[in-house]
Amino acid sequence: MESRNIRLAVIPGDGIGTEVVAEGLKVLEAVGTKIEATHYDLGAARYHRTGETLPDAVLQELRGYDAILLGAVGDPSVPPGILERDLLLRIRFAFDHYVNLRPVKLFPGVRTPLADTPAEDIDMIVVREGTEGLYAGTGGVMRRGTPYEIATQESLNTAHGVERVVRYAFDKAMSRPRKKLTLVHKTNVLTYAGDLWQRTVNRVAEEFPEVTTDYSHIDAASMFFVSQPERFDVVVTDNLFGDIITDLGAAIAGGIGLAASGNINPEGTSPSMFEPVHGSAPDIAGQSKADPTATVLSVAMLLDHLGLAAEAAKVEQAVADDIVERSAGRAGRTTHEIGDDIAARVSS
Amino acid sequence: MESRNIRLAVIPGDGIGTEVVAEGLKVLEAVGTKIEATHYDLGAARYHRTGETLPDAVLQELRGYDAILLGAVGDPSVPPGILERDLLLRIRFAFDHYVNLRPVKLFPGVRTPLADTPAEDIDMIVVREGTEGLYAGTGGVMRRGTPYEIATQESLNTAHGVERVVRYAFDKAMSRPRKKLTLVHKTNVLTYAGDLWQRTVNRVAEEFPEVTTDYSHIDAASMFFVSQPERFDVVVTDNLFGDIITDLGAAIAGGIGLAASGNINPEGTSPSMFEPVHGSAPDIAGQSKADPTATVLSVAMLLDHLGLAAEAAKVEQAVADDIVERSAGRAGRTTHEIGDDIAARVSS
Ligand SMILES: CC(C)[C@H](C(=O)O)[C@@H](O)C(=O)O
Ligand SMILES: CC(C)[C@H](C(=O)O)[C@@H](O)C(=O)O
Repeated sequence: MESRNIRLAVIPGDGIGTEVVAEGLKVLEAVGTKIEATHYDLGAARYHRTGETLPDAVLQELRGYDAILLGAVGDPSVPPGILERDLLLRIRFAFDHYVNLRPVKLFPGVRTPLADTPAEDIDMIVVREGTEGLYAGTGGVMRRGTPYEIATQESLNTAHGVERVVRYAFDKAMSRPRKKLTLVHKTNVLTYAGDLWQRTVNRVAEEFPEVTTDYSHIDAASMFFVSQPERFDVVVTDNLFGDIITDLGAAIAGGIGLAASGNINPEGTSPSMFEPVHGSAPDIAGQSKADPTATVLSVAMLLDHLGLAAEAAKVEQAVADDIVERSAGRAGRTTHEIGDDIAARVSS
Repeated sequence: MESRNIRLAVIPGDGIGTEVVAEGLKVLEAVGTKIEATHYDLGAARYHRTGETLPDAVLQELRGYDAILLGAVGDPSVPPGILERDLLLRIRFAFDHYVNLRPVKLFPGVRTPLADTPAEDIDMIVVREGTEGLYAGTGGVMRRGTPYEIATQESLNTAHGVERVVRYAFDKAMSRPRKKLTLVHKTNVLTYAGDLWQRTVNRVAEEFPEVTTDYSHIDAASMFFVSQPERFDVVVTDNLFGDIITDLGAAIAGGIGLAASGNINPEGTSPSMFEPVHGSAPDIAGQSKADPTATVLSVAMLLDHLGLAAEAAKVEQAVADDIVERSAGRAGRTTHEIGDDIAARVSS
């Protein structure tokens, strides 16, 4: 990476989003990378103040950054879907973040809630499609509020959209020791979309003879995440199934407080966006109770994405060390304290 | 119940389906209820032999029974979706099984895979909608096999379909000590369908002031099933979310080998169908390795549905006792042995 500053757009968002992003930036600063961060006050507050979710001009501006760091969006004061669709999903779609990358890995020192599961059994990465499926938002409602109401949602799946994310997943599988890829879908019920996904995996698999592939229905996969997580190495799946299974993945890997994610445009034609898997958690917002670790790990993914592998590794190591210390008794820290502790390790 | 025989249609189906159904019938016989069971050889074998999945005449015949006991359908030799859609889902739809009832309860003596979760924390019942949503099967494919392919699936949700299952769930909540109902959906992304579900719950809730209601997104709910299962009492959800979350529920409640279900037509205008939650498990079929307990518990649900509460309780108690004994060391029994043991307890 050339030594020019990294230009970072920061969208703290709602609820605990602002709290955890502050700590993510603290750690980023501690890394010593030259960062030029610009904050955008998108989210519930701005929506209430101005009625805006994501003005076109802002979307245009965001395009000019090297990357985006997002906290979380969503607030009970805003009808469900408005901020999610018009802000978060709008960015994912506009910037063609077709890879939503979510590692599910148990850090040493973290206890999985799964009894009898050795730590090394939980080590996979979920490659979730990020731009189509049921998230397309198409559908509608007729005769709303009457006994004859009908509400529809459409899952849109294209060869273009499926193939590129499947290819990414195979590449990812090649970079891992086990070289195993599992398609998760529901081909026996969603026969049109499932058929497209399965055929695509079968076809791309021919180019990756070293990768072992298998298949699991989403219902069985949810069961196996709990009973046999060692089945999984790289999981590739659609937008909705990926949403569900990565929260479940976070749960088995010690909690949503540690789950990082990247919304990636692999071609780099637009900035990728990094965000914790957790939401805005309005119930604990403003109390400095949120764990910023997921955001810090998302910052590590961001650094790695920008080619700063050494810096990324440093942040990850700091988190790993912090977690070990945590398990040795340093519980009950505030959001700030955890951020301070990780930042101190990074700069030491 | 009058003393005429119960007329039961039995569809063993594929894989382990035939093995577990045999044990279910063994236990049913041991109860001493007068049963007239008629077997239907629907499934992969018949499909290969005749090309038929469920002939119209057979569907018509099935209508005449008091209830249906099904093992499992699906086989790798048949393209995904054929047996599922044209046999299993066809019956659920034709007989308007709009309630798919799935208890998630940890039996004493069964170890949950969740460390630190007291047994009493896992005790809920999932009321899954069974006749619409993404299971409608509508959608299509265009330009199949080309780089321009598009495959769609539609989720169809009607006021009629949602309200009746929501009402059933509220009634169910009233019958339980905690009287709590949680809607699980994804209202922030599936805004049309989610809005219909949420409005329906809100409206019906007014008629049930004693029931506490809350809401959880499907992704968060999947996490909470692992981290805080005690959150849930009655869960009401759509067809697909219900499919996923009940497999997850089975996993946390000690495994799919114990998970029973009923496809219920509450009005009794057509026969209800009872089946284990697990599938045909071709990998272990024919080896007498399958646990028939889920089928036996489905038989208990069947008896209860037919008004034979004492008989249902007897079967459940026999299973509970068998499970305690199992945990005391009687592992490694064959499918038949487990069936024999439970049947012996029932008739003793
Ligand atoms: C907030 C919501 C729209 C979002 C999603 O469903 O993708 C979130 O759950 C996530 O996983 O990033
Ligand atoms: C076999 C399949 C169609 C079925 C479903 O998805 O409903 C099964 O998974 C179930 O849960 O009963």
